[in-house]
Amino acid sequence: MKIAQISPLYEAVPPSLYGGTERVVAHLTDALTQLGHEVTLFAAAGARTRAVLVACRDQPLRLDPNPLKSDLAAHLNMLHMLRERQDEFDILHFHTDLIHFPLFESVAARTVTTLHGRLDLKDLGETYRRWRQFALVSISQHQRHPLPFANWLATVPHGLDIAAPTRIEAPADGGYLAFLGRISPEKRPDRAIAIARKAGLPLKIAAKVDAADRHYYETEIRPLLRQPGIEFIGEIGDADKTAFLAGARALLFPIDWPEPFGLVMIEAMARGTPVIAWRCGSVPEVIDHGITGWVVDSEDDAVRAIEQAASADRVRIRDVFERRFSARSMAQRYESLYRRLLAPTEQTEPLLQVG
Amino acid sequence: MKIAQISPLYEAVPPSLYGGTERVVAHLTDALTQLGHEVTLFAAAGARTRAVLVACRDQPLRLDPNPLKSDLAAHLNMLHMLRERQDEFDILHFHTDLIHFPLFESVAARTVTTLHGRLDLKDLGETYRRWRQFALVSISQHQRHPLPFANWLATVPHGLDIAAPTRIEAPADGGYLAFLGRISPEKRPDRAIAIARKAGLPLKIAAKVDAADRHYYETEIRPLLRQPGIEFIGEIGDADKTAFLAGARALLFPIDWPEPFGLVMIEAMARGTPVIAWRCGSVPEVIDHGITGWVVDSEDDAVRAIEQAASADRVRIRDVFERRFSARSMAQRYESLYRRLLAPTEQTEPLLQVG
Repeated sequence: MKIAQISPLYEAVPPSLYGGTERVVAHLTDALTQLGHEVTLFAAAGARTRAVLVACRDQPLRLDPNPLKSDLAAHLNMLHMLRERQDEFDILHFHTDLIHFPLFESVAARTVTTLHGRLDLKDLGETYRRWRQFALVSISQHQRHPLPFANWLATVPHGLDIAAPTRIEAPADGGYLAFLGRISPEKRPDRAIAIARKAGLPLKIAAKVDAADRHYYETEIRPLLRQPGIEFIGEIGDADKTAFLAGARALLFPIDWPEPFGLVMIEAMARGTPVIAWRCGSVPEVIDHGITGWVVDSEDDAVRAIEQAASADRVRIRDVFERRFSARSMAQRYESLYRRLLAPTEQTEPLLQVG
Repeated sequence: MKIAQISPLYEAVPPSLYGGTERVVAHLTDALTQLGHEVTLFAAAGARTRAVLVACRDQPLRLDPNPLKSDLAAHLNMLHMLRERQDEFDILHFHTDLIHFPLFESVAARTVTTLHGRLDLKDLGETYRRWRQFALVSISQHQRHPLPFANWLATVPHGLDIAAPTRIEAPADGGYLAFLGRISPEKRPDRAIAIARKAGLPLKIAAKVDAADRHYYETEIRPLLRQPGIEFIGEIGDADKTAFLAGARALLFPIDWPEPFGLVMIEAMARGTPVIAWRCGSVPEVIDHGITGWVVDSEDDAVRAIEQAASADRVRIRDVFERRFSARSMAQRYESLYRRLLAPTEQTEPLLQVG
């Protein structure tokens, strides 16, 4: 198939450090190429991809030091470029929320839109009702809750192409606890620290601090870092993640918001590391409780899970990752969706009602 | 004519305190109604207008305490509502920058888009090239500089409907200097303070402090407020502006950015108060130098202008305001543009090239 993948223009594809959507777009695009499709990636210049790249901006918006720029105009420009070439593609796969709706109404039947964010925002419901001709993909079933009426085509969990560590085994020294991602109130690094202190294990925090979260970091988190065993190592890139995660007894994911997917959970699983996560958003769907991790409701639950994590079957965790969350499995799921869209008469159910 | 005015959804129409675009939309809409047109206003609920209001959101975005909302979705919803009714109107007049372009391509010939913001943002040029079928109105000639190639239809200076003070006369006590608007680095309240100190006159600062400018206010401006004669009175509404401006010897507008219009200058003129403004952006177009104010390049220039301001002809300033910057004169200019668009064959020049 001839497939256009349309990325947001915010981060590099893939991001060098933190960033979810553009990472998934990068891995999906490469995996579709490896499945034999002709894939064209619409993204900011500099994307690392096996697909044909159409560079739609000289650099990603968040990496551009020029403060005088327009996110909206940049995305409209990309979509206008794509529209001029839309007939070259069998499928247009958008990762741009809803901004593309007005431009692609005439070809909506051969588009797929994957929603990457939380959907409990006030104005979204009306937009997804008004442009109901666009088939949507959720990244977890839970993500759909605020918009049950939307035109859901399927749920496709995220996948990543991550090489297995050379040896998958429990850390010889018993390991530390890991917190990976971003310092922000909804990620609850404070709770991770409390759990580690209760469990009596060291905690390593590898996390970005955005400008918007600087005040929270300084006032709420930084004072907690003085406690024994708590180490803040800053933001890390993919090259460092395997050592960081493989050396951990478990990843702590004690979130307090409706997480639509939670990429870091599968980044841990890819290294055979179990995940201890709060029952929020997508968590119960992503974790096979008792196998790839534990879904918990309290700090005491989490401490008990940390004891069990010492004897987790880490090879099996990696196996589950490959089956459920590899980039290849994600690409195969999308491939079958594209085929359903292009040959709707083969479906017994009307496409709009396929859940 | 049947005219749709399409406001942004950020502030109330008109704003109760600070806010430019929605204020101009409110005054234009009412003035067009008074000229006998059937005007429909697309805006957030609660707009105060003589036109027929189509409430497109339950409240303006910036007044909505819900943090979980989407500016983009809200505007797309409004534009979708409008598109369903677009055939009811002769003219669609947009104040929404460029977000409406993808939805109204088929009726672009009967649209007018007034650009209210600065245009030196990196991604804008390409957007205005790609959607060149939309005729644009600038609010000053200077505003056009970054986009000389765009499809400019005309420049229409902003106008406001402001009642004259009961008596227009110089303040008996010699008056103070006034600074009105927003505390931010580009508005240069620090420079206003320095000028007032040099001139030996009191300065009253009536200004909003946005969250984004709080740090600037605390570190750069607040320490300066301790100096003698400098008074910070916070944000004021329309009801207080006449007393505040009429009591001033002059308004200081010592800006340091490419101001596209500068509504506060005409708010001062409406009260007969002269304006002392830096040579930036629209300033030389808005001020009749030596009549309604002085265009200056230095603090010493400004101090000299303050001396001259004591003997300004304040009745004449009000007269110039009425002729150049009343809402009625703005509405008449737009009315003639609408007529040009609807009867293009009467034009000798192709419309796209009319400057």
